[in-house]
Amino acid sequence: MGKAVYYKDFEKLDFRVSTVKEVEKVPGSDNLYKMQVNIGDKVIQIVSNLVDYYKPEELLGKRIIVCTNIAPATLYGEISNGMLLAAEKNGDLALLTTDRDIADGAKIT
Amino acid sequence: MGKAVYYKDFEKLDFRVSTVKEVEKVPGSDNLYKMQVNIGDKVIQIVSNLVDYYKPEELLGKRIIVCTNIAPATLYGEISNGMLLAAEKNGDLALLTTDRDIADGAKIT
Repeated sequence: MGKAVYYKDFEKLDFRVSTVKEVEKVPGSDNLYKMQVNIGDKVIQIVSNLVDYYKPEELLGKRIIVCTNIAPATLYGEISNGMLLAAEKNGDLALLTTDRDIADGAKIT
Repeated sequence: MGKAVYYKDFEKLDFRVSTVKEVEKVPGSDNLYKMQVNIGDKVIQIVSNLVDYYKPEELLGKRIIVCTNIAPATLYGEISNGMLLAAEKNGDLALLTTDRDIADGAKIT
């Protein structure tokens, strides 16, 4: 389970409900999509290795969870300004979402 | 959005797909449930203020996301050994879950 953490460690991370608005494969990459996602107050680009798990049309319009304050990274020349949350086990992957409708920008607490 | 964080900040937190196995109101409290949740390798008790948002039968069997290594807290004499993740905005609340079936204990990455 790892070392114990405290709420202050959790609240440093800004997780927001977001909606996928555009999806496109990153040219030259095997497994990366670049996506435009609405995080509530703006739309950001995130890059994620979901090609083996989702078709673009499965992602479009999906409500996902994004860590919005992670330091930007550049992959294959594309900037990623956030990190989406997914669950993995034994080669299975599922995206985090919410069990009810809630507005983009809703904060995870 | 808050100060930038790094993946090392994220990976300190152990988030796991979990299933709610039992739900009971905490005696004497207005808004707390204690729940037994399967986090993959064991069942832990978590206490959460969901009474205003969910009936016990809505929670039972639900796939949720739990931070399993947060320091335990005691509320109304009941220990909480984890923290479930929820999204909140303007008085609305939704629980985090996954968009596909995946086994309890799947790690959030």
